[in-house]
Amino acid sequence: MATKMKAALVHAFGKPLSIEEIDIPSIGPDQILVKLTACGVCHTDLHAASGDWPVKPKLPFIPGHEGVGQIAAVGQSVTWVKEGDIVGVPWLYSACGHCDHCLAGWETLCEHQQETGYSVNGCFAEYVVADPNYVAHLPQGLDPIKVAPVLCAGLTVYKGLKMTDTKPGNWVAISGVGGLGQMAVQYGIAMGLNVIAIDIDEEKLATAKKLGAALTINALHQDPGEEIHKAVGGVHGALITAVSPKAFSQAMKVTRRGGTIVLNGLPPGEFPISIFDMVMDGTTVRGSIVGTRLDMVEALDFFKQGKISTVVATDRLDNINAIFDRLQHGKVNGRIVIDYRS
Amino acid sequence: MATKMKAALVHAFGKPLSIEEIDIPSIGPDQILVKLTACGVCHTDLHAASGDWPVKPKLPFIPGHEGVGQIAAVGQSVTWVKEGDIVGVPWLYSACGHCDHCLAGWETLCEHQQETGYSVNGCFAEYVVADPNYVAHLPQGLDPIKVAPVLCAGLTVYKGLKMTDTKPGNWVAISGVGGLGQMAVQYGIAMGLNVIAIDIDEEKLATAKKLGAALTINALHQDPGEEIHKAVGGVHGALITAVSPKAFSQAMKVTRRGGTIVLNGLPPGEFPISIFDMVMDGTTVRGSIVGTRLDMVEALDFFKQGKISTVVATDRLDNINAIFDRLQHGKVNGRIVIDYRS
Amino acid sequence: MATKMKAALVHAFGKPLSIEEIDIPSIGPDQILVKLTACGVCHTDLHAASGDWPVKPKLPFIPGHEGVGQIAAVGQSVTWVKEGDIVGVPWLYSACGHCDHCLAGWETLCEHQQETGYSVNGCFAEYVVADPNYVAHLPQGLDPIKVAPVLCAGLTVYKGLKMTDTKPGNWVAISGVGGLGQMAVQYGIAMGLNVIAIDIDEEKLATAKKLGAALTINALHQDPGEEIHKAVGGVHGALITAVSPKAFSQAMKVTRRGGTIVLNGLPPGEFPISIFDMVMDGTTVRGSIVGTRLDMVEALDFFKQGKISTVVATDRLDNINAIFDRLQHGKVNGRIVIDYRS
Amino acid sequence: MATKMKAALVHAFGKPLSIEEIDIPSIGPDQILVKLTACGVCHTDLHAASGDWPVKPKLPFIPGHEGVGQIAAVGQSVTWVKEGDIVGVPWLYSACGHCDHCLAGWETLCEHQQETGYSVNGCFAEYVVADPNYVAHLPQGLDPIKVAPVLCAGLTVYKGLKMTDTKPGNWVAISGVGGLGQMAVQYGIAMGLNVIAIDIDEEKLATAKKLGAALTINALHQDPGEEIHKAVGGVHGALITAVSPKAFSQAMKVTRRGGTIVLNGLPPGEFPISIFDMVMDGTTVRGSIVGTRLDMVEALDFFKQGKISTVVATDRLDNINAIFDRLQHGKVNGRIVIDYRS
Repeated sequence: MATKMKAALVHAFGKPLSIEEIDIPSIGPDQILVKLTACGVCHTDLHAASGDWPVKPKLPFIPGHEGVGQIAAVGQSVTWVKEGDIVGVPWLYSACGHCDHCLAGWETLCEHQQETGYSVNGCFAEYVVADPNYVAHLPQGLDPIKVAPVLCAGLTVYKGLKMTDTKPGNWVAISGVGGLGQMAVQYGIAMGLNVIAIDIDEEKLATAKKLGAALTINALHQDPGEEIHKAVGGVHGALITAVSPKAFSQAMKVTRRGGTIVLNGLPPGEFPISIFDMVMDGTTVRGSIVGTRLDMVEALDFFKQGKISTVVATDRLDNINAIFDRLQHGKVNGRIVIDYRS
Repeated sequence: MATKMKAALVHAFGKPLSIEEIDIPSIGPDQILVKLTACGVCHTDLHAASGDWPVKPKLPFIPGHEGVGQIAAVGQSVTWVKEGDIVGVPWLYSACGHCDHCLAGWETLCEHQQETGYSVNGCFAEYVVADPNYVAHLPQGLDPIKVAPVLCAGLTVYKGLKMTDTKPGNWVAISGVGGLGQMAVQYGIAMGLNVIAIDIDEEKLATAKKLGAALTINALHQDPGEEIHKAVGGVHGALITAVSPKAFSQAMKVTRRGGTIVLNGLPPGEFPISIFDMVMDGTTVRGSIVGTRLDMVEALDFFKQGKISTVVATDRLDNINAIFDRLQHGKVNGRIVIDYRS
Repeated sequence: MATKMKAALVHAFGKPLSIEEIDIPSIGPDQILVKLTACGVCHTDLHAASGDWPVKPKLPFIPGHEGVGQIAAVGQSVTWVKEGDIVGVPWLYSACGHCDHCLAGWETLCEHQQETGYSVNGCFAEYVVADPNYVAHLPQGLDPIKVAPVLCAGLTVYKGLKMTDTKPGNWVAISGVGGLGQMAVQYGIAMGLNVIAIDIDEEKLATAKKLGAALTINALHQDPGEEIHKAVGGVHGALITAVSPKAFSQAMKVTRRGGTIVLNGLPPGEFPISIFDMVMDGTTVRGSIVGTRLDMVEALDFFKQGKISTVVATDRLDNINAIFDRLQHGKVNGRIVIDYRS
Repeated sequence: MATKMKAALVHAFGKPLSIEEIDIPSIGPDQILVKLTACGVCHTDLHAASGDWPVKPKLPFIPGHEGVGQIAAVGQSVTWVKEGDIVGVPWLYSACGHCDHCLAGWETLCEHQQETGYSVNGCFAEYVVADPNYVAHLPQGLDPIKVAPVLCAGLTVYKGLKMTDTKPGNWVAISGVGGLGQMAVQYGIAMGLNVIAIDIDEEKLATAKKLGAALTINALHQDPGEEIHKAVGGVHGALITAVSPKAFSQAMKVTRRGGTIVLNGLPPGEFPISIFDMVMDGTTVRGSIVGTRLDMVEALDFFKQGKISTVVATDRLDNINAIFDRLQHGKVNGRIVIDYRS
């Protein structure tokens, strides 16, 4: 077996990543080593590499948390998976397994969690260390490139939609139908919801329409709240994947009374809520991040059944800085996935 | 039967109410006339009389929506109640009965609702017209003065606590333990919750302690978020009855991950939410106003079982302007209830 | 306006219905008169005419509770509907509107309910009296024949599926895919569920397959529990529309642990449950009858969106006894709907 | 450290247990060794030793699953607990941690679970091997004798009450107020429920009354369904800890429409349900066994707050056969706990 691997490292926040040959990491008795086939590139990787958030990664580190690969080695205490298994390596590297959140099946809220490509090294490398209790199990034969975006983008919007507390037959608005939003439209439809897509880009709205959105609204030219109340009396739920403050303010007006708005993005800054409106309308606003392991099983089930198609373009790890650049400037349609076989 | 009654009318927003002798109103075939025994005075009456909210009452009008009285006359189509019955006349005068909200048992969200003492005349008068389908049914023998505050204050906090999605054994913080908050402490304990009281008034905190709060925090001298995380790792739910912006901001920090914060007050202005924190912590913020008829049945059940005591001082309708003044300046401990028998 | 109408009356339980010309009924101030266009024939009508159940209708009476028609007259106090409106006249004629069940939006559990075609005269007549607060509202232009079965059969299975507590992506078994079951397959799919159809009739199973069932099982030749556990590890929910005791016993074995079985049929007799299995497996068994007004709104929404197709054959009221005969002997594929225009 | 321990072994089903000196078991890298201080004796131990259930323990084995003790040794991979910690060793020895049930926080439904004192050796011995991920964590200073019954009896009824889907203020009936039922009365009250106790033993009913039951019914002389409907219109939920078929049949009649009946006992045999009644009344019947780790945390919280008192008599392991005999003949009031310090 090889002893060296190619990896993209962050040595300083806000600087280009450095592509290096480094030692393949060794694993502990409870860990596994995964040889990566593919890894999606997510906005969160940008935030990680830029040190945008309050708690920052320890330098240097390897980002990347939408990894798909094959188990190359297992620690001596590992029993649940074996060499050769295909797994997904997601954002949630591990959780404590003992706190109330973990016991409740809410390990994404665990205060002692580790995150792949953030608090521990991630998948922008040929190999990655993972915790066998937190990887996703993938059947042989699945296209690793196509499935990669499900591991984070798909999981996140699927969980976000669940958190809207809507039920089949309800109306849901997806605000922002770029990479995440396109998957949200599909998950929404697979969940029996009637979907309204909101964006300011006609092309993205056309895609949403094609994917089955019952109604599309261009927020540049139309007032989403007004249009939606006129058309269906307000939605029961709204999922905000857009990151502009304006999108947030508009979303507060698209729900009917008793509706729920779920925030799925992580833009900086604050979001002003009108207390009077919230109380009078009985509105709920809620944050949601990625999803649990059970959410992952479910999100992957929808994908395996062919109900979710991902729009991907592949690229090489060597181009990571160029990819980041395109992502930062909103020039990515769907998801860029690094293909380690090329 | 008398043909004239004493009533307190608002002729101009922000001006003193006028005490007048006016005709006892006549009722339609589906209505009832209630001879009032008591009526609590609520902050909302102040807002109504001042025209504080976007949609204002049509002048002139009679405020008051915590009425307790006896049915003096019933319309010819009324079958469910009869002359002599004791009823409560609450904020929700009526709802359409046909929209999705009404059909779901959520008539408080009905877009076609009427409100007592706001969109129709209320209980600051010796008689009031009511809708028999929306009044509360009270057993004979209940103290009308003591029960009055349950009809709005009690109902509101009971519903607010339900909306925290907490369950028996959970921790809940009540921010603001004045009139509403004192009832919230008692409802919380009756619901099997462990209650933490937050206020800036030592006397109110002492009352909360006496009513069973497990912990009290003076937000003038202590940081509620810090104290609560240290003591119990954060609460599962928080109910905000306080109306200062600072109370809202502090409340965002008292919940553990996955917690729910319910806004029960109606202060003017906006409330800034940190998107990053809300998403990372999976926090829910929700507005809640009064309660449904079923909530009323339940809130009254707790009262009838002796689990809720209300702190009331009685006064006369003639003094309504003085009462308003004391209320506006925070000089009311508990609730002032107008006693029409005096 | 006409003063006489044709109607099918039950004068004695278990005897043929009598087709008669009788007076068109007059309405009270809170009622409406509906001129029927169509009415589906349901197994419950058979039970009613045979006096099968503990509490029997008062003789003579007119059965029928899947009526579709136009409002011909409204009582003087009626405000919500008007002459000319198209309405559905369902099983639940009215409820008290005041008990805990009614206040909770669970009027189907009201102890004071009236039932169309059972405790009050029904829709096997050219005109029927209805309560405007409990009829279904239908848009102009809907095919009255096609929509009739939604009013009872569709509503019942849709509610039954909701009561399985399953969520999109879950597996659900429909035991018995005749008239009710075929609609259940479609509602299940529209609700994002993966559906397994169980029956002993190959033709019905073929229809279920065509309607989108992921798996079909002929319980004559295969053991449903065994097959389902092998294929998907057990279903999350099961809906029993079949009425044989064997179907009930088999259903207990198709769910995975923690699964819910909903009984939708009303066969006579008892159903033995193994206590040990129920406790060890954490199984839930639950009865469900028709659906509430809100369930009706939702069930009709799915129909209007074209997600539910009903298989209907039309016939004339004069043939009601022959229709009953065919129904009793299991010779009806889908639903027979009486067309009053023919 | 000692190398031998005293233990009570089952060598043949239905025969007296044999008290022997055997080797203290050794532990694997992921296990812990617990030196027991106390262990409650449960009906399940009787079933285990008699081989009453379909899947039987492998002989010989040591029963006992309400153990309280101190960690005497930890395997080399164990990180979460340490020598000297006080732990509870419950019925659920371990679960797979990977199936949908485990991921959902429902490890009690895991198909790959191991059970203490059944599929692996239990706590009727001075030492027991345990899985550190599934033991209960107890604070220093708790009375080991008093807390033992919470680990199984308390946990079971607490979970059972949760599964009734009742909420604070609702009415719940506890059928059978012996060992389990007495704890259920207390948990019910702590959860804000109004409790009705049903039994055929006046002494037990008197205890239930003293513990706070609002109403007690002697099913020998009164019809529970009739009495409860007269008093409160039927309960919202019922918990059946009694094991007689008659108790089950009576319980079906105590709930109001829409009510939920939870079976907590494991008597042999079947339980006939009237399909018509279940469907008309919208009744739910559900099995529930022990509780999850999170339920355990919650059940212990109520105990630590002094809301649950357990009635215990202590005895010595040497007397296990006499204890079994008294248990079998219903001569135990509360719980017998083996005290290993005596």
